[in-house]
Amino acid sequence: MKYFDFASTCPMSKESLQTYITASQEYYGNTESLHDAGSKAETLVEHCRATLANLLKVEQEGISFTSGGTESNMLAINALAEAKRGKHIIISAGEHSSIKNVTTKLMNAGFEVSEVPLTNEGIIDMEQLQQLIREDTSLISIQHVNSETGKIQPIEKVHKICKSNHLLLHSDCVQSFGKIDLSSITSLVDSFSISSHKIYGPKGIGALYIRPSLSFRPFLPNVTHESGVRPGTLNTPGIAAFTTAAKEMVMNLHSHQNHTQQLKQELIKHLDEVKQKVEIIGSNSEAPIPIIGLCIENVSGQHMMLEANRKGFYFSTGSACQMSKNAPSQTLLAMGLSEQKAQTFIRISFGRDQTLNDVRGLASAIIDVIEGEDYEPV
Amino acid sequence: MKYFDFASTCPMSKESLQTYITASQEYYGNTESLHDAGSKAETLVEHCRATLANLLKVEQEGISFTSGGTESNMLAINALAEAKRGKHIIISAGEHSSIKNVTTKLMNAGFEVSEVPLTNEGIIDMEQLQQLIREDTSLISIQHVNSETGKIQPIEKVHKICKSNHLLLHSDCVQSFGKIDLSSITSLVDSFSISSHKIYGPKGIGALYIRPSLSFRPFLPNVTHESGVRPGTLNTPGIAAFTTAAKEMVMNLHSHQNHTQQLKQELIKHLDEVKQKVEIIGSNSEAPIPIIGLCIENVSGQHMMLEANRKGFYFSTGSACQMSKNAPSQTLLAMGLSEQKAQTFIRISFGRDQTLNDVRGLASAIIDVIEGEDYEPV
Repeated sequence: MKYFDFASTCPMSKESLQTYITASQEYYGNTESLHDAGSKAETLVEHCRATLANLLKVEQEGISFTSGGTESNMLAINALAEAKRGKHIIISAGEHSSIKNVTTKLMNAGFEVSEVPLTNEGIIDMEQLQQLIREDTSLISIQHVNSETGKIQPIEKVHKICKSNHLLLHSDCVQSFGKIDLSSITSLVDSFSISSHKIYGPKGIGALYIRPSLSFRPFLPNVTHESGVRPGTLNTPGIAAFTTAAKEMVMNLHSHQNHTQQLKQELIKHLDEVKQKVEIIGSNSEAPIPIIGLCIENVSGQHMMLEANRKGFYFSTGSACQMSKNAPSQTLLAMGLSEQKAQTFIRISFGRDQTLNDVRGLASAIIDVIEGEDYEPV
Repeated sequence: MKYFDFASTCPMSKESLQTYITASQEYYGNTESLHDAGSKAETLVEHCRATLANLLKVEQEGISFTSGGTESNMLAINALAEAKRGKHIIISAGEHSSIKNVTTKLMNAGFEVSEVPLTNEGIIDMEQLQQLIREDTSLISIQHVNSETGKIQPIEKVHKICKSNHLLLHSDCVQSFGKIDLSSITSLVDSFSISSHKIYGPKGIGALYIRPSLSFRPFLPNVTHESGVRPGTLNTPGIAAFTTAAKEMVMNLHSHQNHTQQLKQELIKHLDEVKQKVEIIGSNSEAPIPIIGLCIENVSGQHMMLEANRKGFYFSTGSACQMSKNAPSQTLLAMGLSEQKAQTFIRISFGRDQTLNDVRGLASAIIDVIEGEDYEPV
C-alpha cells in the first residue's frame, strides 16, 4: 500500500463496511418513529452510544452523534461559549480550521479570541496561555493531537489551569481517538470531538461529548434529536459502522501503537542517508501517533508531494482542510518556522495495515526526489 | 412489505448501496488532497454534482453537499437571511421543524418571523401571505410539499409575489424531490434543499442549491470546502450513493407516479366501507405524492398507530422530527383542525416497491382497529 495520508482520511475497514451494509438493510427505520421499525433502529443507536461511551469512559448521555469532527467542533464551541458569561475565548495557534472558523464567526457576536502560540517543539506555550487568561475568559479550546506534526498537547496541564480559573475546556480529539488512550483525558474536559473516517469508519459521521452536568444552550432551539444537541434524522448505518470501527481501534490500541512505532522508526532509519537534509518537525518519532512531519532542505513540499505522487506514493503537505488555500501551515508558522522553511514541509501518516516494506518503498521515493534529477530548489 | 412510513425514511435501494460499497473501497481519498487518491475522489464528487444539477436543471456550481435536509435548510436560511438588508422573514405554518428552529434562532439575532396560515385544504393562504409582506421583509420560505398531508404548495405563485416585491425565496423540497418534477420550480427559487434518505439513498447526506448569482455570506468564514458553503470532509461514498438514488427516482418518475396513484386509490377504495369515519386531510388523493394524511373519527392516531404496529404495519402520526414532542401537528392546527381532531391523525406514506396487496393488508388492519374490539375513543 502506497497511501500515506491516513491523517487526512482512511478507507473503511471491512468490518465497518459490513456493519454499514447490515444496518442499512435491517435497521433502516427512523429512530424517532414510534413503531417497531423505528424502535429497532433506536435500540441499535443507543447500543452504539453505550459502546462508544464505554470505550471513552464517559457517561453515554453526554454523547451526541454528528456529521463529523467539523460539526462536532462547531456545536461544542457554540454550546460552551454561551454556557458562561465571559466573552473571551482562547484557542491554540495549531487548532484545526473548524475551530478557527467557528471562533472567528463568534467574533461577530461580540467574542474576543486569543491564540496561544506554540513552542518550537509544537507544544502550546503554557506560560503564554497563563498570561492570556483574563477576567472575562470563559473557554479554552486545545486540540489533543496536532494533525500536521502529530504532537500531543498537555491536556492535563491545561485542565489544571482551567480548573483553577473556573474556565471551560474543549478538546478536538479527532486525531487522537483510536490512536492513543483517551480515557485519561475525557474526565478532564467539558467537551471533545471525534470523527469516524479518521479511524477506518465511514465519512460523514462523528460524535461530540459534552459533560452532562454542564448547563448550556444548544445551538438551535426546540431540537428533538440527540437531547437537543444536534438536529436531523440519525444516520443509523453510519453510527453503527463508526462504532464498529471505534471498537476495532480501541480494543487493539497497543498492537496498533507498536506497529505505528515500528513504521515510524523504519522510515527514520531509511531516511538516515539523507539525514542532513531532513528534519522531523516536533521530533515526535517516539510517540505512538501515526503522523510524522518532515521539512526537507531546499525541496518544496508541493514538489516532493507531486513527485512522490508520480511514483504512486500519496502523502500530504499539511491538513487537507487547508490545502486549497496553498498557504504555509499556520501550525508551522506558530512554531516559529520561516515561511520558506514551512513550504518544505510534508506530512507522512501511516495506516494500520501498512508493512515495513511499504515504508521502505516510501523512503526510497523520498530519497530519489532529494537526490534525483527531479531536484527543484524552493 | 408492511412498512408505510417512507415519508419518514426509506431503506437504501440495492443500486444505491452497491454504489456506496464501491465508492467506499475505491474512492476513499479526501477530495481536498492533491495526490491522485484525492483527485480520484474529487472527480467522482464533481461528476455527482454535475449529474444532480442535470436532474434538477440547475447550474452545478450552485449545488453544495450537506449532511441532510436539516443542515441544508439551516445553511440556506442563514445565507439568504443575511443576503438582504431587511430583518423580516415569512415562513409557512406548515414548515418542517428544521426551518422553524433556524428562524426561531434568528429571532435572537434581531429578525422577526411571521407565519402564513394554511387554508383548510392545507395550502398556504395567498391573501394572508400578501398582507404579511412589509418593507423590511427579505425572505420567504415555503416548503414544496408538506410532509404530513403531502400537499403541494403553489411555489409558482409565491415566486411571482417574491419577484414583484424583490424578496428572496427558499423552498424545502425534501418531500418533493424524486416524487414530482422539480425542474419547473428550481428556476423560480433562490435556494432549495433536498435529502437522500427520503429517496432510497443513504442517511446523513443531502444537498443545498443556492443560485450562484446571489451574493451571500456563507454560514462560517474561511471555509475551503464546497465553495465555502459547507465545511468538513466530503462524504464521497454518501454523495455517490445519493446521486445513484436520485437518478433512479428522477429517471423513473412517471412510472413511480403511476404506481403511487394506484396505491393511493387502492387504499381509498378499501377504506370505502368505513368512509363515514375516515377523512382524507387536504384531500390530495389525486396528486402523485406518496403521502395520505387521514383523520379517523374518535380513534386517536397514537392508538391506531400502535394497534397497526402490533399487526406489523408501520406508519406514523406525523412528522418523525416532531414525534417525541407528543403534541398535535402544527400543520393540522394551522389548517384549522381542532386539537382533538388533530390527535386522530395518521400519515400513510408509500414505497415504490409496494404492491396493491400490501395496501389491501394495511386497509384491513386500519378497518380492524376502527371496527374491532381494540376501539378506544380519543
